[in-house]
Amino acid sequence: MRYDFGSDNTAGMAPAALRGLIEANADYARAYGADDITTRAADQIRRRLDADAEIRFVFSGTAANAIALSMLAYPHEAVLAHHAAHVCTDETGAPGFFGQGVGLIGLPGLSGKIDSRALEAALDEPEVGHRQPPAALSLTQSTEYGTVYTEEELRHLIEPVKERGYGVHLDGARLANAAAAGFDLTQIARLGVDVLVFGGAKAGGLCTEAIVMFDRSLARRVDNRLKQAGQTASKGRFLAAPFLGMLESNAWEDGAAHANLMAQRLAAGIATRSPFILAHPVEANAVFVRMPPEAHAAINAAGWACYRFDDGSVRFVCSWATTEAAVDEVLETIAGLG
Amino acid sequence: MRYDFGSDNTAGMAPAALRGLIEANADYARAYGADDITTRAADQIRRRLDADAEIRFVFSGTAANAIALSMLAYPHEAVLAHHAAHVCTDETGAPGFFGQGVGLIGLPGLSGKIDSRALEAALDEPEVGHRQPPAALSLTQSTEYGTVYTEEELRHLIEPVKERGYGVHLDGARLANAAAAGFDLTQIARLGVDVLVFGGAKAGGLCTEAIVMFDRSLARRVDNRLKQAGQTASKGRFLAAPFLGMLESNAWEDGAAHANLMAQRLAAGIATRSPFILAHPVEANAVFVRMPPEAHAAINAAGWACYRFDDGSVRFVCSWATTEAAVDEVLETIAGLG
Amino acid sequence: MRYDFGSDNTAGMAPAALRGLIEANADYARAYGADDITTRAADQIRRRLDADAEIRFVFSGTAANAIALSMLAYPHEAVLAHHAAHVCTDETGAPGFFGQGVGLIGLPGLSGKIDSRALEAALDEPEVGHRQPPAALSLTQSTEYGTVYTEEELRHLIEPVKERGYGVHLDGARLANAAAAGFDLTQIARLGVDVLVFGGAKAGGLCTEAIVMFDRSLARRVDNRLKQAGQTASKGRFLAAPFLGMLESNAWEDGAAHANLMAQRLAAGIATRSPFILAHPVEANAVFVRMPPEAHAAINAAGWACYRFDDGSVRFVCSWATTEAAVDEVLETIAGLG
Amino acid sequence: MRYDFGSDNTAGMAPAALRGLIEANADYARAYGADDITTRAADQIRRRLDADAEIRFVFSGTAANAIALSMLAYPHEAVLAHHAAHVCTDETGAPGFFGQGVGLIGLPGLSGKIDSRALEAALDEPEVGHRQPPAALSLTQSTEYGTVYTEEELRHLIEPVKERGYGVHLDGARLANAAAAGFDLTQIARLGVDVLVFGGAKAGGLCTEAIVMFDRSLARRVDNRLKQAGQTASKGRFLAAPFLGMLESNAWEDGAAHANLMAQRLAAGIATRSPFILAHPVEANAVFVRMPPEAHAAINAAGWACYRFDDGSVRFVCSWATTEAAVDEVLETIAGLG
Repeated sequence: MRYDFGSDNTAGMAPAALRGLIEANADYARAYGADDITTRAADQIRRRLDADAEIRFVFSGTAANAIALSMLAYPHEAVLAHHAAHVCTDETGAPGFFGQGVGLIGLPGLSGKIDSRALEAALDEPEVGHRQPPAALSLTQSTEYGTVYTEEELRHLIEPVKERGYGVHLDGARLANAAAAGFDLTQIARLGVDVLVFGGAKAGGLCTEAIVMFDRSLARRVDNRLKQAGQTASKGRFLAAPFLGMLESNAWEDGAAHANLMAQRLAAGIATRSPFILAHPVEANAVFVRMPPEAHAAINAAGWACYRFDDGSVRFVCSWATTEAAVDEVLETIAGLG
Repeated sequence: MRYDFGSDNTAGMAPAALRGLIEANADYARAYGADDITTRAADQIRRRLDADAEIRFVFSGTAANAIALSMLAYPHEAVLAHHAAHVCTDETGAPGFFGQGVGLIGLPGLSGKIDSRALEAALDEPEVGHRQPPAALSLTQSTEYGTVYTEEELRHLIEPVKERGYGVHLDGARLANAAAAGFDLTQIARLGVDVLVFGGAKAGGLCTEAIVMFDRSLARRVDNRLKQAGQTASKGRFLAAPFLGMLESNAWEDGAAHANLMAQRLAAGIATRSPFILAHPVEANAVFVRMPPEAHAAINAAGWACYRFDDGSVRFVCSWATTEAAVDEVLETIAGLG
Repeated sequence: MRYDFGSDNTAGMAPAALRGLIEANADYARAYGADDITTRAADQIRRRLDADAEIRFVFSGTAANAIALSMLAYPHEAVLAHHAAHVCTDETGAPGFFGQGVGLIGLPGLSGKIDSRALEAALDEPEVGHRQPPAALSLTQSTEYGTVYTEEELRHLIEPVKERGYGVHLDGARLANAAAAGFDLTQIARLGVDVLVFGGAKAGGLCTEAIVMFDRSLARRVDNRLKQAGQTASKGRFLAAPFLGMLESNAWEDGAAHANLMAQRLAAGIATRSPFILAHPVEANAVFVRMPPEAHAAINAAGWACYRFDDGSVRFVCSWATTEAAVDEVLETIAGLG
Repeated sequence: MRYDFGSDNTAGMAPAALRGLIEANADYARAYGADDITTRAADQIRRRLDADAEIRFVFSGTAANAIALSMLAYPHEAVLAHHAAHVCTDETGAPGFFGQGVGLIGLPGLSGKIDSRALEAALDEPEVGHRQPPAALSLTQSTEYGTVYTEEELRHLIEPVKERGYGVHLDGARLANAAAAGFDLTQIARLGVDVLVFGGAKAGGLCTEAIVMFDRSLARRVDNRLKQAGQTASKGRFLAAPFLGMLESNAWEDGAAHANLMAQRLAAGIATRSPFILAHPVEANAVFVRMPPEAHAAINAAGWACYRFDDGSVRFVCSWATTEAAVDEVLETIAGLG
């Protein structure tokens, strides 16, 4: 089975990430993140965001998201999120585990983007003791369905949330792809996001992600919080090193730009050469295709891993590692099903 | 500041571990641990333990221990452990976080080894509704104070626990050092350990550790458990790869043997050349020295990181990376304080 | 505002319950449930269920349900329940709090009864690591919409669940009303229910409910579990006493029969004299009426508390305390809206 | 077995409490605490404390304490408390359950009172990521060993805690006994206590206690918090009613004064007529006696329930219900052991 398009975590580390890791391995270093590489990688992220922020590197996106949400909502409160968001559907209830039962309120919206009227309706629900009232909004950029919010769209979603004094989390597992699609990273802090998960794994790193706390009060005793949650690396430098390698060389951006380009190539081929239609606009690195189960099965049978999503479409994801040749090969298979 | 002796997590990855990582990076691989490298690394561990077991690789020892304990005790129960065990003193209450309040009952014992009479007394406590009764025993091999349990000692501790139907966890963060000191790994399963944390980080790996479930019933839905707990790697191969590199080359054992040897050299030097006495038998890779605060401060001032422990002694730890030259240099400093 | 029909917890204790409480107050008694009244009340319940079972009295139905579910599912698993069940909609996420993130999978079905095909479909979902797989089924008898499952219906729901080795919880907050409607309580154990919450509050008791564990292995260390969860009464006899008063006098059954009768009277009146239609079959003590918001507002304005439910209908609930006069009065108001 | 002196929860409800309950039972009332009785009982408490505060009635002291602590400390933080405090020794780890692993740091001190130097030492511990740093202080008045803090003593304990911005919890399970011993309730708010558990059960009520939040920010969404934690009564009036009965009639104070007087009588008798010595000053309603195990066994054999405590002494507790005759009878038994 070929995993080129199965997910953006089936590729290995990008060369720059691996180089960062190898360079970081020399010599002794202070444990638990008190090392130079961690500091430099955090600086690289702050520079891109053009914002002051407390930053910690953690092992996985699931943990990063769940811990971020536990900073913004108590167990007796809930977090508003798109019903197809990763925190709702793909993390085995991690927000509830880390947040001791914190609720998730799923919101509708086309192509993975939260519908602003649905959000306002949820915010306007009268509070009653027997339900978990919202305390925070969780956004995903780029979205689970490969679309990219505009600044304007984000502003419309964030403003009513902040007006109520609620918090905002941004899951940036594919933030690099959003940036490569034109999203201005310096707007994240300005829009009022409180905690950002700055994605590394899908951009070509190890599994690690960075938790970026713009609201520094959230960072109080964060090292205790992370240690207790099993997210403190003794050899902390190795969490930051792949980031540092990618960020100092711009491979973080370049890889995402390449992934997006490959997705465009794939989408164009499907639109023009196959009998299938695209399920969502292709704005980042994922291509969702409406096809019957037999077609999906035929593609799998031809040796290509790809998965059906909750909306019924089949997903193909590109990454820094995707080659033009692979795109053309899989297109051959898909087109041949017509 | 030099971190040669600060901890065994201040060194980088051993060459074999890094090589394993680099080799694992080639090509695509199935995500979430369904890859070949993960399988091979698990096989290597099973072979060393001479036992069938379900194995998963996780990001950190803190998480590995806490999750293992959550398999063995309910929130309204407690785990018996040496009061100086890592789970009791150095993990920010992680067992209680992952185990939703599971209790820890600290037991006394010389040099980090649980006193068997204290254990029996704790097991014999009458059960009452308003306390958390014990449900499991947590052992550490080699211990927090650098000693190594004999099989006979472990048998005396484990037997009364198993008789009551309770579980047994073994924290093997420094299992390689115990093995290098002569502890027979194939006895772990035979002695009745239910869950072992097979250490990688301190043996020269990345931060990752392996959870080894000899009792396969504990492994039911363990992938869901780990995912929810933020301990599932999307790029799973990278958790297993450093293990594979070290295990296939025996660097796991060789590095620990070297570390133990360096600890012997350091201990011998302190005993013969310094005015200080050793606080505990030096059986693995750590040397604990009784010294006044001024001496400790002087060593730090001379540029060597080392820490005072709860028993009042100062710890020096050796690793795969410790050089004879470094041992001799730090000995020079210590001896000069006489 | 009159609360006659607002809920079945707006009435006070039934005379027999209060009498039980007063009688229990004499003299000293052993604390924490080791008293005679607790034993006798548990015997009364076992007799009605014609089954051996471990029984504990707890303070609230929310806690009783959440604790029962935490016995049947791990945090990384989920419980199947009707999407309108009390555990899903009215308990502020208590199952997730007590169960550290345990999931709830809402199932559809007419009038509060789970659709058996939807259940089977959920059971047939392939297990994947990133979702919470089902471990138990939660049923409600009588249902949230005032209907009563037949034995046959329950059997069809329970059988496929037990076949997979999963657990079954029955929320019997209104079990008395189901019994009064003809449901045979001795079938509960035979059908395979593992944990029953035997309702007291809505039957005319204090707030207390009984947790009935047919599967005695679930009762291991349950006193520790309850104490830790804040559900152990120091003066335990007062939790059992209202039950004892009602059960020894059959007021538990009689009150429910009266409540059901009043609901029939109300339903008949609405059907014949008002312009509104009933939203659900009236089989127990609740009457759900489809009416426009203005009608609902007019009833509230006329002084009658009643609430709109998630299905859009307005609920009127009868209890042991409901009088014919009150039924006729509220009917007058409702009929007058035509 | 006679339970007169076994605990202060072996007696029933005081007549005034039962009367309150009976009176509250008339008629319908709004559910979930939105009733008149709840309001009046809260007013009675505020008046005694001479302070504005948000007040909720909950089912048990264990839950009240654990929930209060969860308001003051995060899971990765700890609460400082006397090592013999009820939260540390008698609540089956409830603080950790409700607080998802929140730590408890046990402090020493004579006769149940925290030693102020030990407290300051704990506060001065340097913060490190791998331990749970203190976030709050938990006090008990009167203490677990029957002593009563003076205002001055409390001030010395509370001041350094507040200076660091930490919270203060006061477990007032026996607050009535402290008040009867001369402790001025109006000082509680002035001393800086953030959350008080105002005891009802041991003062002659049902099992219920009141959570008093002087810091109203802690009360934000407290109804959701309590509902989720299984501590919201549907028939809320019954939690408040016994309080109201006792508070409006001053039975709350009178019963405690009587209990303290009986304890004095018992203590005087033991001191003068028995061979045993008192283990702690008798300042409230409990008498602790140093006696050999055989003497303790003989008292039990003579039909009197009494229990050995962690300090090795045997406890006799008086309550509103203790009679002079019972005191004299038990004294007869104790004196006869000489």
